[in-house]
Amino acid sequence: MAAPIVELLLTGNEVMAGDTVDSNSSMIAHRLAELGFSIRRKVTVGDEPALLIEELQDQSRRADVLIVNGGLGPTVDDLTAQVLAQAAGIGLEVSQNAIQHLETWCAARGAALNAANLKQADLPVGAEIIPNPVGSAVGFQLELNECIVICTPGVPSELRAMMDHILNTLRQRFPGAQATDVLRLQCFGMGESAFQQLISDHTSNWPDTVELGFRAGAPQLEVKLTIRDLAHAAARDQCRDQLHEIFGDHIIGEGDTRLAEAVLQLLREKKQTITTAESCTGGLIASLITEVPGSSEAFEAGYVTYSNRIKALELGVSTDTLEVHGAVSEPVVLQMAEGALRASGADYAIAVSGVAGPDGGTEEKPVGTVWIAWGQTGAIQSRCLRYNTNRKLFQTMVAAVGLDLIRRQLLGIAQTPRYFIERKTNLPASN
Amino acid sequence: MAAPIVELLLTGNEVMAGDTVDSNSSMIAHRLAELGFSIRRKVTVGDEPALLIEELQDQSRRADVLIVNGGLGPTVDDLTAQVLAQAAGIGLEVSQNAIQHLETWCAARGAALNAANLKQADLPVGAEIIPNPVGSAVGFQLELNECIVICTPGVPSELRAMMDHILNTLRQRFPGAQATDVLRLQCFGMGESAFQQLISDHTSNWPDTVELGFRAGAPQLEVKLTIRDLAHAAARDQCRDQLHEIFGDHIIGEGDTRLAEAVLQLLREKKQTITTAESCTGGLIASLITEVPGSSEAFEAGYVTYSNRIKALELGVSTDTLEVHGAVSEPVVLQMAEGALRASGADYAIAVSGVAGPDGGTEEKPVGTVWIAWGQTGAIQSRCLRYNTNRKLFQTMVAAVGLDLIRRQLLGIAQTPRYFIERKTNLPASN
Repeated sequence: MAAPIVELLLTGNEVMAGDTVDSNSSMIAHRLAELGFSIRRKVTVGDEPALLIEELQDQSRRADVLIVNGGLGPTVDDLTAQVLAQAAGIGLEVSQNAIQHLETWCAARGAALNAANLKQADLPVGAEIIPNPVGSAVGFQLELNECIVICTPGVPSELRAMMDHILNTLRQRFPGAQATDVLRLQCFGMGESAFQQLISDHTSNWPDTVELGFRAGAPQLEVKLTIRDLAHAAARDQCRDQLHEIFGDHIIGEGDTRLAEAVLQLLREKKQTITTAESCTGGLIASLITEVPGSSEAFEAGYVTYSNRIKALELGVSTDTLEVHGAVSEPVVLQMAEGALRASGADYAIAVSGVAGPDGGTEEKPVGTVWIAWGQTGAIQSRCLRYNTNRKLFQTMVAAVGLDLIRRQLLGIAQTPRYFIERKTNLPASN
Repeated sequence: MAAPIVELLLTGNEVMAGDTVDSNSSMIAHRLAELGFSIRRKVTVGDEPALLIEELQDQSRRADVLIVNGGLGPTVDDLTAQVLAQAAGIGLEVSQNAIQHLETWCAARGAALNAANLKQADLPVGAEIIPNPVGSAVGFQLELNECIVICTPGVPSELRAMMDHILNTLRQRFPGAQATDVLRLQCFGMGESAFQQLISDHTSNWPDTVELGFRAGAPQLEVKLTIRDLAHAAARDQCRDQLHEIFGDHIIGEGDTRLAEAVLQLLREKKQTITTAESCTGGLIASLITEVPGSSEAFEAGYVTYSNRIKALELGVSTDTLEVHGAVSEPVVLQMAEGALRASGADYAIAVSGVAGPDGGTEEKPVGTVWIAWGQTGAIQSRCLRYNTNRKLFQTMVAAVGLDLIRRQLLGIAQTPRYFIERKTNLPASN
């Protein structure tokens, strides 16, 4: 049985004005994916009755399932019940089930039922209620143009609490629909276009049954392999193997894996530790590491040495070196890494010093220039890169590169990462 | 002249699948509000050519302005140019302007132009390009059904960089539309419902001409005062003064002001400096400070002392104190702050030590417990708070509270912040 056509109708002025970023669609999409349903089309409009009625008519004709989100609250701009009744050419009636829910809900909070609440019990004639375990507004569903219209609240926690019930309803109505299966790969070190190009160059027989999708994020790129039928799992696994062959160590893991998690996982396996010596990233690398639960096993100390004086004082960077080469230089990051290893007793260090901008650039070292050092005592490598972008993105990319270089070292990867090949710097060696 | 009817068309499988939460609509809505334009209706569909062509036809007939977002990238699922050409019944041609942009963009990155990139230069015949200062894909616009169709990239930073150009185009095409004027206040230390309640309790005569809006974010709350006509500026200013009276020092600034910016601004005025001693926030406070351009004037050193050993070694926290009271305790954060002031020579310090979770909680100090110390040498205050939430939000809130406490001290505010009153902790004093 083919999956039904699902559409979404989002209502609310605050959504249209951009004051609320819609995360509900994402939640609905993820839950529907469990049934193998995808959302074909989504329409968002403000609290305008005429527009809402028009959309309800149009979308219920196009779809087998229409999920309406928002407009169930107690205020005058909550219109869903009223416009759905109008679209269906029926009236509103007081739902005894809804009244009972409201009474129980208010009693549990020691509050009296007020007129605004009671409005929430006026539902289209014949509507079936959807229980709301966490809020005052019940959801409801109604047939319209041979489509099941499911009305849900805009408050994310209330919507979330109704989704199990909704999924059960849909499972019964559309038995046998096939679930989709999504495999996600997290990649670092190349853009979407480079990725796509490499696939075009190296694969000639990509199967139609395996959909390829991308989500470009800073700093990671997520690659998705989707199959609509588990019978295609073998083809999907072959595609995954092909991607691993093509991209090798630029794939950092599956699922949601972040760079810092991959690094911490490797450190835990080896029972080793890491420290950070940060100038231009100002604590961001340490912060990414300690965002991961359990990071204390492999991370004890981080040094944010923003000024030259502190680089000398805390990490023992030579004031002569700072004077001769400047803070953004190879000998300085090497000494920062050495100093952090010495001070903390950690096994690995990442050290960065760069010009984050917008000020502070020179002709020789423009904004975006960064020296990175990484490794173990006695075996520290270094490299200069340039990211000509805004301050925040520069800091994000530099932190990610630092973590990735340690990941590569922990994995014993000899291959040069693409960002070293593609990002040529024109800097003269600074020592 | 009435404002034009504006619709939005969002494309992309990743948006439909819920893998990307759409923040672009919100950005577009906010920028259009500067012209007094609001978005009437928004449609979101996946990368399906037939659906996209149908929507382009339908929406261009309904609207005066149609902004299309997404689908400009270099991959096979980037379809916007192609479907717009089909909807308009015209062909694609290589845009020399787009080629030139791509060549400059690649050259600046030392990268070669590849075939995937070149695909981005194939635009509908007659399309006018919209420059992209920060990415490879140019935007473009075309007339269709007496509607101006404006195609923009899905990457938020690229979209943001194009909005000025787009606003100029629209301003010229629809002269005389009445701009709305939005005043934004950044607040910290209370939620949306508490804010709303305080306004209801303390104002009886809020004018209809001044719209009140909220954008609840972690950790700041943005309050918006919108007027549709500059003739109401005086009423708006009165409302602002009322809000300042009610909320006092919980308003940290206007516009986009972040807590770290407010702190740095105050430090610069006083020519003073700050340092950080972080355990549970792991570098986040230092990172928020150094995200602000020019932070080096007031920030030299940050200490991420994640383990007890490093707290003793780097900040001179007594090992006896650590043993007797534990790392999450008042005497330890006090010693951390003192140690950081001593080591760095800074004027002010923030020190935090807490249980970020998900593990590590005890009955006495459950997950979410944090001790914060702040102040100057010889005048350090401390406080225990509890945030029973997930690890990341806990770190975000603790970092924000630390910055806010320094802001209050720098401003000489004697009043107790609301989060001290509302967040009672049941901890026994630990010393």
